Formats: sequence, structure tokens, C-alpha cells
Amino acid sequence: MSVRDVLERYRKGELSCDEAERLVRMDYVRGIGEHTIFDPRRSDRKDIPEVIFGQSKSPQAVAEIVKEVMRDKEVLLVSRATKEHFEAVRGAIDPLPARYEEGARMIVAGGRRGPLDRGRIGILAAGTSDARVADEARVVAESMGVEVMAAYDVGIAAFHRFLDPLVGMLDSGVDALVVAAGMEGALASVVSSLSDVPVIGVPTSVGYGAGAEGQAALLSMLQSCSPGLAVVNIDNGVGAGATAALISIRCCRHK
Amino acid sequence: MSVRDVLERYRKGELSCDEAERLVRMDYVRGIGEHTIFDPRRSDRKDIPEVIFGQSKSPQAVAEIVKEVMRDKEVLLVSRATKEHFEAVRGAIDPLPARYEEGARMIVAGGRRGPLDRGRIGILAAGTSDARVADEARVVAESMGVEVMAAYDVGIAAFHRFLDPLVGMLDSGVDALVVAAGMEGALASVVSSLSDVPVIGVPTSVGYGAGAEGQAALLSMLQSCSPGLAVVNIDNGVGAGATAALISIRCCRHK
Amino acid sequence: MSVRDVLERYRKGELSCDEAERLVRMDYVRGIGEHTIFDPRRSDRKDIPEVIFGQSKSPQAVAEIVKEVMRDKEVLLVSRATKEHFEAVRGAIDPLPARYEEGARMIVAGGRRGPLDRGRIGILAAGTSDARVADEARVVAESMGVEVMAAYDVGIAAFHRFLDPLVGMLDSGVDALVVAAGMEGALASVVSSLSDVPVIGVPTSVGYGAGAEGQAALLSMLQSCSPGLAVVNIDNGVGAGATAALISIRCCRHK
Amino acid sequence: MSVRDVLERYRKGELSCDEAERLVRMDYVRGIGEHTIFDPRRSDRKDIPEVIFGQSKSPQAVAEIVKEVMRDKEVLLVSRATKEHFEAVRGAIDPLPARYEEGARMIVAGGRRGPLDRGRIGILAAGTSDARVADEARVVAESMGVEVMAAYDVGIAAFHRFLDPLVGMLDSGVDALVVAAGMEGALASVVSSLSDVPVIGVPTSVGYGAGAEGQAALLSMLQSCSPGLAVVNIDNGVGAGATAALISIRCCRHK
Amino acid sequence: MSVRDVLERYRKGELSCDEAERLVRMDYVRGIGEHTIFDPRRSDRKDIPEVIFGQSKSPQAVAEIVKEVMRDKEVLLVSRATKEHFEAVRGAIDPLPARYEEGARMIVAGGRRGPLDRGRIGILAAGTSDARVADEARVVAESMGVEVMAAYDVGIAAFHRFLDPLVGMLDSGVDALVVAAGMEGALASVVSSLSDVPVIGVPTSVGYGAGAEGQAALLSMLQSCSPGLAVVNIDNGVGAGATAALISIRCCRHK
Amino acid sequence: MSVRDVLERYRKGELSCDEAERLVRMDYVRGIGEHTIFDPRRSDRKDIPEVIFGQSKSPQAVAEIVKEVMRDKEVLLVSRATKEHFEAVRGAIDPLPARYEEGARMIVAGGRRGPLDRGRIGILAAGTSDARVADEARVVAESMGVEVMAAYDVGIAAFHRFLDPLVGMLDSGVDALVVAAGMEGALASVVSSLSDVPVIGVPTSVGYGAGAEGQAALLSMLQSCSPGLAVVNIDNGVGAGATAALISIRCCRHK
Amino acid sequence: MSVRDVLERYRKGELSCDEAERLVRMDYVRGIGEHTIFDPRRSDRKDIPEVIFGQSKSPQAVAEIVKEVMRDKEVLLVSRATKEHFEAVRGAIDPLPARYEEGARMIVAGGRRGPLDRGRIGILAAGTSDARVADEARVVAESMGVEVMAAYDVGIAAFHRFLDPLVGMLDSGVDALVVAAGMEGALASVVSSLSDVPVIGVPTSVGYGAGAEGQAALLSMLQSCSPGLAVVNIDNGVGAGATAALISIRCCRHK
Amino acid sequence: MSVRDVLERYRKGELSCDEAERLVRMDYVRGIGEHTIFDPRRSDRKDIPEVIFGQSKSPQAVAEIVKEVMRDKEVLLVSRATKEHFEAVRGAIDPLPARYEEGARMIVAGGRRGPLDRGRIGILAAGTSDARVADEARVVAESMGVEVMAAYDVGIAAFHRFLDPLVGMLDSGVDALVVAAGMEGALASVVSSLSDVPVIGVPTSVGYGAGAEGQAALLSMLQSCSPGLAVVNIDNGVGAGATAALISIRCCRHK
Repeated sequence: MSVRDVLERYRKGELSCDEAERLVRMDYVRGIGEHTIFDPRRSDRKDIPEVIFGQSKSPQAVAEIVKEVMRDKEVLLVSRATKEHFEAVRGAIDPLPARYEEGARMIVAGGRRGPLDRGRIGILAAGTSDARVADEARVVAESMGVEVMAAYDVGIAAFHRFLDPLVGMLDSGVDALVVAAGMEGALASVVSSLSDVPVIGVPTSVGYGAGAEGQAALLSMLQSCSPGLAVVNIDNGVGAGATAALISIRCCRHK
Repeated sequence: MSVRDVLERYRKGELSCDEAERLVRMDYVRGIGEHTIFDPRRSDRKDIPEVIFGQSKSPQAVAEIVKEVMRDKEVLLVSRATKEHFEAVRGAIDPLPARYEEGARMIVAGGRRGPLDRGRIGILAAGTSDARVADEARVVAESMGVEVMAAYDVGIAAFHRFLDPLVGMLDSGVDALVVAAGMEGALASVVSSLSDVPVIGVPTSVGYGAGAEGQAALLSMLQSCSPGLAVVNIDNGVGAGATAALISIRCCRHK
Repeated sequence: MSVRDVLERYRKGELSCDEAERLVRMDYVRGIGEHTIFDPRRSDRKDIPEVIFGQSKSPQAVAEIVKEVMRDKEVLLVSRATKEHFEAVRGAIDPLPARYEEGARMIVAGGRRGPLDRGRIGILAAGTSDARVADEARVVAESMGVEVMAAYDVGIAAFHRFLDPLVGMLDSGVDALVVAAGMEGALASVVSSLSDVPVIGVPTSVGYGAGAEGQAALLSMLQSCSPGLAVVNIDNGVGAGATAALISIRCCRHK
Repeated sequence: MSVRDVLERYRKGELSCDEAERLVRMDYVRGIGEHTIFDPRRSDRKDIPEVIFGQSKSPQAVAEIVKEVMRDKEVLLVSRATKEHFEAVRGAIDPLPARYEEGARMIVAGGRRGPLDRGRIGILAAGTSDARVADEARVVAESMGVEVMAAYDVGIAAFHRFLDPLVGMLDSGVDALVVAAGMEGALASVVSSLSDVPVIGVPTSVGYGAGAEGQAALLSMLQSCSPGLAVVNIDNGVGAGATAALISIRCCRHK
Repeated sequence: MSVRDVLERYRKGELSCDEAERLVRMDYVRGIGEHTIFDPRRSDRKDIPEVIFGQSKSPQAVAEIVKEVMRDKEVLLVSRATKEHFEAVRGAIDPLPARYEEGARMIVAGGRRGPLDRGRIGILAAGTSDARVADEARVVAESMGVEVMAAYDVGIAAFHRFLDPLVGMLDSGVDALVVAAGMEGALASVVSSLSDVPVIGVPTSVGYGAGAEGQAALLSMLQSCSPGLAVVNIDNGVGAGATAALISIRCCRHK
Repeated sequence: MSVRDVLERYRKGELSCDEAERLVRMDYVRGIGEHTIFDPRRSDRKDIPEVIFGQSKSPQAVAEIVKEVMRDKEVLLVSRATKEHFEAVRGAIDPLPARYEEGARMIVAGGRRGPLDRGRIGILAAGTSDARVADEARVVAESMGVEVMAAYDVGIAAFHRFLDPLVGMLDSGVDALVVAAGMEGALASVVSSLSDVPVIGVPTSVGYGAGAEGQAALLSMLQSCSPGLAVVNIDNGVGAGATAALISIRCCRHK
Repeated sequence: MSVRDVLERYRKGELSCDEAERLVRMDYVRGIGEHTIFDPRRSDRKDIPEVIFGQSKSPQAVAEIVKEVMRDKEVLLVSRATKEHFEAVRGAIDPLPARYEEGARMIVAGGRRGPLDRGRIGILAAGTSDARVADEARVVAESMGVEVMAAYDVGIAAFHRFLDPLVGMLDSGVDALVVAAGMEGALASVVSSLSDVPVIGVPTSVGYGAGAEGQAALLSMLQSCSPGLAVVNIDNGVGAGATAALISIRCCRHK
Repeated sequence: MSVRDVLERYRKGELSCDEAERLVRMDYVRGIGEHTIFDPRRSDRKDIPEVIFGQSKSPQAVAEIVKEVMRDKEVLLVSRATKEHFEAVRGAIDPLPARYEEGARMIVAGGRRGPLDRGRIGILAAGTSDARVADEARVVAESMGVEVMAAYDVGIAAFHRFLDPLVGMLDSGVDALVVAAGMEGALASVVSSLSDVPVIGVPTSVGYGAGAEGQAALLSMLQSCSPGLAVVNIDNGVGAGATAALISIRCCRHK
């Protein structure tokens, strides 16, 4: 029963003042969950779809979760998903659409949002492992209705190949950039210093020895001398894509 | 001599082909420094003023640097500066204006940029030490021509006091938020989950014991479940303010 | 031979003074083991059943240990146990009862203690992996005769779903709460701030990148601004359950 | 305006349905701050007084904060406070009482709560530095109306001296114990294994070399084989005292 | 089109001044990638062949990369490669030569450079695991045309066996030494103190317990009292070999 | 040719002064290896047998090493060895004796030294995993001719069971004790405080969460308040056994 | 009343059986403290004098502690003591003797034990800072009646100067060696490999950068390939001296 | 007495064979110190002057050390020295020359080696703090007779200013480069990728927050994708300068 319903029924005398206050309070108490930190409608408000972390969950478990959530969601993502996860999900939500993004290892359940004129972002990555994380960012941003220009399927870790796509991205008016980089993580600093848009750096767990597992990349990005660069956690392609897309969506509101 | 000058003088026969190529190449070689990572014009392009790190430098050293840089800069900041730094700087660049921002411990050398219609951002902080970092962010953003709504001079670490200013900021149409928080750093997550704009978290070196010096706050923000939150390094108010202001400036280009 | 026996026999002249003193001393020396740190009767005194760590032990080894210990214990737990461990244990202690708690991956050997009117505690967890740890806490507490209200089999990491069960738990008069949480570990702080009972936080090894393996969750809980929250080690469901149950048992003594 | 007021005025027609809903919602939005994480009344509900962290704040700043907070608080604590802080506070809140607890380095502003029959706890510490932390716990617990039996002013790090007071505490019916210990932190484990009440361990930043600053003590307590032991952060006497007192208060409700 | 071409065509009037400047600038912009950090010709200038990191890449992926790169490279290396990688590569670049260096787990694609009179270096390693890293260094250096004297296939970690080969190396006039060592990493210090040539230490991920995974070896080498010792990252045989060979090549230019 | 031989031949005129000096110097240079750090006879002088680290080496590799070394050694150990290693070694050195110590996962190649009257040591361990490390210590010490009293096959981590064997060991006149303990590592401190002989603590990689992998045990032992306790690295049973045996052998020289 | 007294009085009928058992039990309970971990007579049994940690204690506090303890101790040490501590102590225990060991920064309160024929140990250190730690070891060992041969006041960190004293020490029949070393800590390994007596390594907090504060030295010693080397914590000269002296004392019992 | 003297006297019958062997052996034993790790003549052989670490030593102590060492050294350096150290040293070794290098905080005792035709190296640094470390490298290299081209006194951390000096250095034929950089340490990678000579990176303890104290710079340099870059410890200007100079000296031997 909504607050308005309570008010109406109270006016009609169907509820006593005490009852009305109790019901409003009850709504209120429940609302704590809905409107604060734990806001279930957060994903709608922010245009960020819910993302299920698939790794270490069984295909059946994931499928059940997806099925339940899809009752009131337009789109739902599963990250770190295998093809087995995908098969289980597709069966569970049929006839709703679902597709598997192999590079990103993500399941996109539900309809892709059509063109929403929400601007575009650019995503750059250096190598094979970085590309996996970058692709996560791409899928998340696209599911938020943001166009993505991506450049990371280049095969060899030859950084200079990013200059052309970077210029292309900037010329196309991207509002934010995501840079996925492992090892020493220098690419994020370089791109940030060459660009006049905010850059979200996402260190990847590439590299070995001291500073491995993305630690050196993370620390380098945090120590970067280039203001305009903010970071998300190692391998957190989801967070990077969502933040960059949020900037783009925000900027489009000004149109 | 610009490339255009070289071309003109070459056409006129004042330069041989070899000379012209050499001059273009020379411009090119020098250009590496100017246009890549180390772009001296970066601060102009990005609207981010140069920031001198004052700590551990003598007042004289800082004053000399400021004097030299101010030859071709409109505004220059000195962070982690004392009043002694300020006195030395003021004397060195007189009659150019300079002021000391005590809370931020920053010197703003040069004229404050007038109203530039570059949008606004919000900055939130929890306590006394956090406020210092937040104030750094404010000064940097303001020097970039961005309006700042700040709420951190509250005296007691009472988080709930931020809800009103937060709602006020969101209603005023801020394009980005900066949240400075130490200890467990939860405020950044909370604000991010309550907002539909990108949030830049800046962990502060507040706290003691395990996870002290901002480590817990940094890790918590990196592990945050709330997409839309990106972070800069511990106590890096400069980077947080610059990134948030960059988002705001970017968004204003769409107007 | 008990001290009393020694005294009696000494009085009767069956023991010389030297012999009597030696025997008393011997009892004394042995007693060091029994009454200090290494108190074998500790589990009885504390109502905390002995817990065998099953992981990395063979089913046979576990079965032998259980068989031996069950000679003078009413109940015995095996943590991190597989079904193979369970089969071996069941065969070894037959016809004593044994059951396998799949969620907690624990074997409960011996009879479940009946209703003991030892109060109740609440246990909350966020996701799949957290639930495993939370379930360990549940089994331990139940084996101590404490009633457990649990809420963690919710399928999706939607924190707000805990508000209803939390209110229910508090209304039911739980004397302590256990909160299992990974990632940034914020749930423990939130629950502590919403409750007027002591909270035992147990960080779980969920998350990746910087602060992974429960480190961020542990540090956040340690840095928490909410007094009334104490923690046990990462994934230590046994310790969390035992401590919370101990509080409950203690409180019931006041009835 | 309270919800009840809104309802009344709505019934009387002084408010339209829209207005009433808006006002209820407004109350609701503000309530988020008051009733969730950021509950300003938390300290009352939990009987835990607010604690101002005095370190790195000027005496004037602390005095102003205390003065403001004391408007609606019965008691307020300032931790890590110097005598200078105390003098400033005493002057600011006069004629309200204030006293300085030198051992704990805390200011207790406001009237000590009289005997509240809220049970008692025991606090044990090993040496001089540990005592400082333990004393913080004592002051916090006493300000919550809980009786404290303390044993730590023994001068020499002779652990065995705690056995008598420990037995005394247990015989006196303490409901919880706080143990402050640095170096290898073994005392917490020992006390926990000897006791049948929950123990809150607080590692102290005593020790040097590898594992110094309380790290070894913290890790040892976390790794402790003795269930029934939970910990707070290094040197966090406030948290330890508050948690133990909360247990005692909780237990007393059963009377 | 080269700068010279542009100049010529501009002189001939085939290009306007604007067009010429644009073309020069375009060359310039592209040049950023080629001449700075991301210099694609770096490997030629430095005589260091490109090295593909094979681990975690599929044989097909590696083969494709090698095939593409070999279009304009004389030699290409694949590190952390399996025999499966090798088979795929050999098939892909046939009839170009390729061989598999089993000890180093590297593929050498393309023709081995003939004798280039580029001096020699020495490589020393202690045990089996160290040898693997040392062999990586050897293959890299040889592919750069530098002669390698190696001593590490000794079977037992008997350090003293290196004295003879070390003397032999120094007598043969090596210009640099590579020392691969795990555990406490003392060999690098010892060799450095016995030699009058620069030593490149490469810690290996050998050892267990505290300081395992090469951490102790790395820290020891960094703390070494012996000037003349510089280090590369743990297990970075490629970097060590390349740096030592670079010294040798440099020295040979003086002949 | 020995120095004496050189001297003789020099006197006889068979060697010129230059030749003699060169030969002496050569002996000298080689001697560096033999008599300093890398003393190949160290194992004889110290009575510590050479120990091959078997893990990550193939059975064939280990067998070859053992075969070669056994040419001039009486006894040789292989640690972290599997049964496959053992079979290969036995075949390689037949008819020399070899046996496999399953608990310690060690191969003892060569004849066990008979009773050597070299005193005895005691070895204590807490649980299954600790026992493995303790057994390594036992095998090493026994191979050095030292008698070992061991108590660790107790099945359950019940510390108090060690008191009887500890008293027995002390009464039997052990000259040193080895204590293997994981988790919080308290056993080493306890035993040290109860004993009047030096104790070698060996932390084991038992435990999980913060301080896992033996880190908490190592730090606790290092921070121990009990003088008379020294430690070796985590899981380093070989080092602990060798050091304790060395003490015993040393003490026996005084007889 | 001793057990024997109880027995006597019980026999005489002065105590009932209940009373006798109670008294024996009481003695027993108190004995827990005296005979286990917290054995106050430990220092006597082990010949290790009690050591007060003076740092961060006021001269008055230290003097009071010393005065109290000296009632039943022959000798007492204060470590990390200043001259101010010494003056206060000397005044407090007059006419008992006290002296200040400046190098070790220790106070020796009470009479030096005369020649006790308890053997000798050797102590080696590299530089000035190391010497301070080594001197702590010397004072502790001497206070235990053990003769100390020390070599560390050499002025320059020239390791080779230790060879002569080392040979001298070994020839003099030292039973154990203490080696204090910072930086990379190699000296402990070197001495251990050159000696046939057990070596106690004590890393010192000398060095800077990565591995500073003794971390590299500690890890190197723990990773050392030389069996026969055990370590104590960084800068723990007290522990090193006590352990080495304990070995010497133990060995002398065999005479 | 040299080996040759022994041989001569032996031939003449002045020494028995036993005596001769003993004397040779004695020379040999002493030689261990002189010719192995602890080679006192190492500094001569390597052309690296001895360097006294002045920090935390009193001026008197340093002066005495310098005076003693200067008896057989041509040149001696004191690092981390104050003016007070310098005054004491100058007085102690008068009339030998001594000078104070303020930027490097080093004392150069003894005559500067004249022009030695030992080639040249280049040293680059980014900012004020980095310059201090870079200057240490310069003084060490110059004291080895190597010419140094340095570029670091630029006042502002404007990286691009290094391109011109870098090109100048490379054109002047430097054989090695030293790069001192803090923060993210990117300068070392950049210079390495632009150069065809080996680069020694020296991370400096500049920066704050996560990765501060040079940790991020160190890890970045270790993870650098640019082969040809080796590193020394944080702030270790001495080691960097010595290694680079050693390369230069080595290269000059080929002339």
C-alpha cells in the first residue's frame, strides 16, 4: 500500500490516525532499505543494470537468480560467466532474449536498450588479458545505452597503435575514456595526459614478480602526476564501464 | 619558427629542402615533449592549472618556481604550503595577486578566473582532517572556473548531516561529487549509492591501527559494490578536484 | 588417583609424606595442562563443542579422530568437511548419530542438544560465498543449544533484504548478531549501527583485486566508526558463531 | 512537522493529498539520515556516548564541538585528549561538570551516570602502554553505566598477576572481559581459554621489529584457537569498552 | 608521404600551405607514436628483439601474432611458451625458420643473427628453477648477436662451482654479468663483489615461507652493499639478458 | 696438487718461483670456494648432511643429482620428495641403501649413521600439518647422529597432551627443543617459558584469513616475550632440525 | 602454606580432609600462574634475568619498578634506557650497585654475577647501529654469567675484519655465535657457513628503501641456505644474547 | 710476508716445509677476507671509492673513520652528510683536501681524480627531491673519473625539459644513463624507451598515499615493459652512479 493509498483511506476514515501513522511508518521503515544505501531502485535511477558475479556460482544458481530478477528488470548482466552459465540462463528465461559476450565473459539477459542518444565513451586496452577487462567495461556501458568506441583487439602490446583510435575517439566527442592496463600501467597516465576528458583507469592483473597481479599498475595510476585520472579496482571492468557511462549520460542531460 | 613559417620561407627559397626538412624535424623533435606525455600545454588544454607541491621545499625555492612559471600562466597553485611559503611567493610575484587558502594549505597565485559558466560540483567530507583534503579539491576546482558546493565544516563526525547538503547539491545540478573520507571510508559508497552522478572518492589518511593511514578507506572504496565510484590516491585532493571539475567542464560543452 | 585419595592414603600411613607430596605435585603438574591454557575441559565449561578442521585431512584420519574424541564428548564438529569425510565418520562412530550440513560443509557428530533455553542469536549474510561462512556460525551456535535466526539464502546480493529479517531478529530478542560480509564489508557496520545488541563481524574471502581475499572487509570492520562491533578472522564462521552463542548463553544465566 | 501532524492537517483539509504525500516523503527523506546508518540517536539507543577523537584537533576546536554537542547530550567523551584540551573544554561548558581521566587521556564531559544496575565487566592489561588503551575501555564502559573491574596497574609485565584478579572478576559475575595486549598478544587467548564469558581482545601498538605496532598481536588474536574471542582494532580501547559494556547491558535486560 | 615529399609537393604548388602544414602535422602526430615511448622501431634501434609473452595465450593466438609481426622483423621471441605454442608458430611462419629453446621455454622465430662481433656476457645461476630464468636471459642476449658464457646446468645448488666459470668469464672479457638467484639471493652480491664489470641481478621465485616467491632475493639485492649491482624484476630473464647485452653492444661500439 | 706438493717440487727445482706462486695462488683461488661461504666440505664440518629440495624437480633429475653426490658423501637427504622420487633414487644408487620417510616426505640416501653419542633433542608439534614439518626436523637430526624424542602424532590439536612428553624430554636431558606450530604459534612461547633449554620455533603454514600461511605464527614467535626462543622460516623443518642437532652435538663435545 | 605444611597439619588433624583438599587446590590454582607460561621463577630457572623495556617509560616509573623487583632478584636489566633512567634507578636502589652500559643503552641493576664457568659465546656486528643491538646481547649474556667475546667496534663496515675475531672465537671454544646485521643481512649467513656452532642472527633496523627497517635482513636470514642459523626479531639483542647464553650454559652442564 | 717471500725463504731453508705451508695457509686464510666477498681491495679493483654512510653517525665518529681510511685510499666519500660532518672531517684530515657537495649532501675526502678518459654518463632527475638522489649519483661517478652530464636542476617537475638534454647526452656518446624519479616513476621507462644505452633507474622516496616512499616508482620500474632498464633501491644514488660509471669505465677499456 502506497503512502497515497494510506492517506486516501485515512481521509475516508477507513484507517484511524494511529493505523495511518503506523502504516506510513511501516512504509518508512521498509523504505530505508529501498531508498538509502541498499536502494533496490538504484539501478534504475542510475541507469546501471544489476550485475551478477557469476564466478564460483553454479549455472543452476545463476539461472535461478537471473530468472527471479528479470521479473522486474529490463536488462541484467552476469559477469565472469562461462558458456555453461549462459546455456542455463537462456533456458531459464526463454523466451526473453539473452546473449553471451565471449570476450567479456558476460551474459546479457534481456533486451538491449535501443539507441538512447546518451553519448559515447572510448575504451582502450593494451593486450589480451587487458582486453578481457576492457570488454567488460564495454558491455556494461552499452547496456546503459551509451555508445562505445573500443580499441583493444590489436594482438600485440604495441602501445603506439592507440594513438590513432584515441584521436578518433576524441574527435568523435567521447565524454570519458576507460583505459585498461596491466604491468606498470603507464597507458592510463599517457592517455590522461593526451586527453581533455576524464579518464577512468582500470589496472589489470597482468604482470609477475614484485608488483604483480596489478599491484604496480594500481599504485602507478594512484601516484600518477596527471590530474584527471581516477581509478577503479584491479580487473573491475564493470565499475570502470559504469562510471564512464555515467559521465556520458550526465553530460547528455545538458543537451 | 612555426611550421608555417618554415613552409613559407622554403617556398620563397630562403630555405633549402634540407634546411626546411631539418627545421620541421627539429620542431617535430621538440614537439615530442610538448604534445605527448609531457605536454607543457596540457594544463591549458585541460583547464587544470599547474600545481607545485610545496611540502619539503623552502619558501625561497617555491617563490622562485612560482615567479618563473607565472611568466606564461594565468594561475598557479602551490599545495601543502605554509604561511611562510605564501609570504615568499607574494613578495616574488608582486604586483600579481596571490592569496593563501588556509584550510587547503594552498597558495593561489595569479588572478582567480571569473565566472566561466562551467557548471558546478559538490564536495563532501566527514571530519577535520578530511576537510583539509576536501578543501584542496575545492580550491583546484574553483581555479578551473567551476563552482563548488562544499559541506564539510561540520565539526563532528556526524555523517547524517550530509544528507541535506547532498540533496541540495543534487537539486542544484552538480555534475560530479567528490567525497573525502578516512577510517573505513564508507561515506563514498553511501553517497555514490544515493546519487545519479559520478563520484570521485578520495581516501584520507585518517584512522589508526590496522588499515590506518587511509589504507582501509582506499581498499573499501576500491572494493565498493556501488558502480559509479572511482577513486584517487589517499589525500590526493588535487586529483579529486581536478577530475570532478573536468567532468563538469566536459558536461558544460554540451550546452 | 585424586588429591582426596592421596590425602586419605597418607592419613592411613599408606603413603609417606614424601610420597604424598610427590603424588600431589604430580597431580598438580598434570593439572597445569588441564586447568590453564590447554584446558581439555574447556569445551565443557564454555559449552563450545570441539571443532576438527577437516580440510587437508583424509577421510580416514578425520574418522579416527572423531571416533576417539567421541568417547567422552556429547557432540563434535568437523569443519571444512566433504561428503567423503562424512561417510567415513558415519561409518566409524555408528550407531552414534551423525549428519552432514552441506551449506556449512560441517559434520555434526553426536546428538544434537535438545532445547536448552539458551536464548537466540541472529546471523546475516550477503551472498553465496558469505552464506557458507554464516552457515558455519549457525551450526556451531545450534550445537551449543542456542536458537539461530538466519537470513542469508537470498540468492542476490541485495543488502536491503536484510532489513526485514534484522527487525524480526531484534524484535525476537536476539542477544547478539553475526554478520558475514565480503567485498568492502559494509554490512557489518550498517547492522551494528542499526542494532542495540553486540555484533560479531566475520569478513569473508570474497572480492578481487586490491583488498581481495577479505582484507578490505577485515580492515573496514576494524576501522568501523560504529562501537559495538567486534570481529573474528576472515572466514572464521566457527569463531563468530561460538562468540555470539556465548553471549546468548551468558545473558540467559541472568534469567 | 511530525507524520501525525501531517495526517491531522490533511484530514482537516489544510493539506492537499499531494502536499501531504510530499510532506510525508520529506519526513521520510530526512528520516533516512536519522534512522539508518547515520542515526543521530544511535548513541542513545545503544547507550554508547558520543566520543570525539581529540588528537590533532586544537583545544579550541574540541571545546567548541563539545559545547555544541552538550546541548542535547547527557555525557560526551573526548579521547586522545591532553590537559590543554581539558582546560578548554571545562571553560567552554561551565557550569556543566567535566573531568580529565589522565590514564585514559580522556575528557568526560557531563554528569557521570549514576548506578544503573547494568552489570559489570572486567578489563585486563599487561603493561604500561597496554594500560593506556585499557583505561580508555574503562572510561567508556563506566560512562555507559556499567561497573568495571580493572587490573592493569601492576607496574611490571608479569602476566601471572592477572590470575587472581581474573578469578575475582569471574566470581563477581562479569558478563564480558576486555583484554589489552601488545607484543605477541597471547594474553587474550589465555584469558579466553580460562573464561566462560565472551572476551574482547584489543591489540595494542606495543612491540618492535617484524609485527610491531600491534600487527603481531592483532594477527595472533585473529588466528587464536580459542573460540569466544573477538577483536577490535589496534589501540581501539573505545570500541572494546563499548562492545563489552553492550554485552553487559544486554545481559542485564534479562533480569 | 614523407616530410620531404610534402615539402617537394608544396614547392611545386601541388599542395596549399594549409594542406602542407596539415600533412606535416599529421606526420607529426603519427610520429608521436613512433618516436617516443611507444616507438615501434625501438627494437631495431636497441637491437632488442620484440618478445611476446606466451603464457595464458592460446597457440593459435600466438601463431597469428608471430605471423603478423614477422612481416617486418628479422627475429621475434616468444617467452613462457610451450611446445604447443611452438608447433603452431612453426606452421604459421613456414618456411621461415623457428626453433624451440626448451630450457628457456622460448620460441625463436626468424633467422638467428650471425656472428656480429658484439662482445660477450656471462650468465650464472644456482639451481634448476634459477636456470630457467637464466636461460631466458641467454636466448634474448644471443638473439641480439651477443655471445653468452653460461654456467648454471650444475644440478646441485653448490655455489662454489661458479668460481671457476666466473674466473673464466672475467678472463674472457665479458662486459657484463647476469646472476639469477632465488632464496636469499646472495649469489648476486657475491659475484658483484668479486667482479669488475656491472652485474644485473635477477631474483627468481624460488623459496618458501616468509620472503618466498623471490621477495627476499629481490630485497636482498636491492639492499646489497656492493655497488655495481642493479636488478630487474623477479623471474625477468628477458629484461636481464637484454640489459646485459645492451651493455656489451655499447662497449663494442668503442672498438 | 696440494700446497705441500707445490712446496716440495719447488724446492726440488721442478717448479720455478713463478710457477710455484701461480700454483699456490691457483690453489688459493680455488680454495675460496672450498673454505668460505661456499665451502663444499661444510656439510662434513658441521655434521649437517646435504639436503636436496625435491619439489618441482623430476624424479630423474633428483636421481641423477643423488647419484653424483653420493660419490663422496655418506648420507644425503631429499626433502619434499614423493614416492616417485624415491623409486628413481633407489634405482639410481643401488646397491647403496635408501629409505623413504613418508611423514617427512624425505628420502634418506646412504647409510644411517650408527649411534654416535651425540645427545638428544625433543621435537613437539600440534597437528597434522605441523607434524609434517616436525618430521622433517626429526629426519635431519637423526641423520646427524642425534637421538630424537618426538611427540606430534596425537591426532587432535590438544595442546595439553604435550606436557607429559615435554617433561619426559626435559628429564631425559634433551639439549634443545624444536616446536612446530601454525595458527597463532603460541606453543613455541609456552614451551620456551616452561623449559630451561634453547627452543627453535618453526612456524608452519597452517591457518587461514589474516595472518595465514604461517605469517601470524612467525610474527608471534618473533614478538615472543620469552627469551631463549629463536626461529627459522615457515615450514623450514630442515633448518630447525639442523640447528637443534647442532646444539646437541656442540654440548656433547663438552663431555 | 606449602603442600607439605598442609599435609602435616592434615595428618595432625589440624585440618579436615575438606580443608586439606581445599588448601592443596588453592595452592594448585595459584600455582597455575607460577608454574606455567607466567612462571615468575622462570628467570631463575632459565638464568635469564628479567629485562624491563625502558623506552617510553618515565625515569620515575622505571625506578619504581626496579626498586620493587630488586627485592627478590639478584640482577635486573633495563633496556632502551637513557642516562636519566639510570640516575633515577641508581638513586632508588642505593646502596645496591647499578651501572649504565652506554653502548647497549642498558642499566644493570644489582651485582654482576661472578665468574660462573658457564662457557663463552661470540658476538659479531657490522656497523655502528648494529653494534648497539649487539651490545644489548653482550650485556644480557654477561649478566647470565657467560663470557662474551665481541667484535663490533670496528668503525667501518668492512666485513672482512671479522674473519680474525671469528677464528679467534671458534678457537676459544665459543658454544654459540650472535651475529647482528642490517641491510641485506648477509653476515649471518656467512658466519653460519664458516662455523660449526649454532648461530643466532639478529637483523637490525639498518637500511633504507625497499626492505628497510631490517625487513630485508630478516627475510634473508629466514631464507638462508645455511642450516644452523636461527633468528630473533629485528633489533632484539636481548633475545639473541639470552638464547646464545642459554646454549652455552646448557653445554657447560655436560662438563 | 707474501707468498713469494715464503717461497724464497723456504727455498733458502729458512723455513721448514711445515712452516712454509702454515705461512701460505695463513696468507690463504687471511686472503679469504681479502679476495672474496669482503675484498678490501674491491674498491680499487672496481674503481668505486669507499662510501661511508654518514646519517646517524656523529661528526666525530665520521671524522675518525675518514682519517683512518684515508691512510691507504686516494679518495673517500661520506653520504648523507651534514655541514657539521664536513667540518669535523676537514679538520681531521688536514692538509688533505676535502669538499662538501651540498646538493648531494656528500663529503669528498681526498683529491679529485684528474681527467681519466673514462667516458661519460648522463643523469636525469625530475624534481627537487629527486635531484638530491641524482646528485649523489653524480658525485660518485665523478669520483670514479667519469664525466657526468646532468640535467635536474630545473625547478619545476616539467618532464619535457629533459628531452633536449637527453638528446644532447646521447649525441655526446654517454654510455649509460641514470634516471631518478619518484611518484609513478614513469621517467625511467620513458628515457629507456628513447635511448639505445642501458638505463639505471633509481626510484626516489617522493609521493604520498598508497605506493608512497618510492614503492610505486620501484614497482613500476620493475614492471617496466622496456628492456634495457635495471634498477637500484629507492634513493640509492650511490649505487646508481657507481653502476653507470662502471659501465662507462668498462666501455672505455675497449678503446
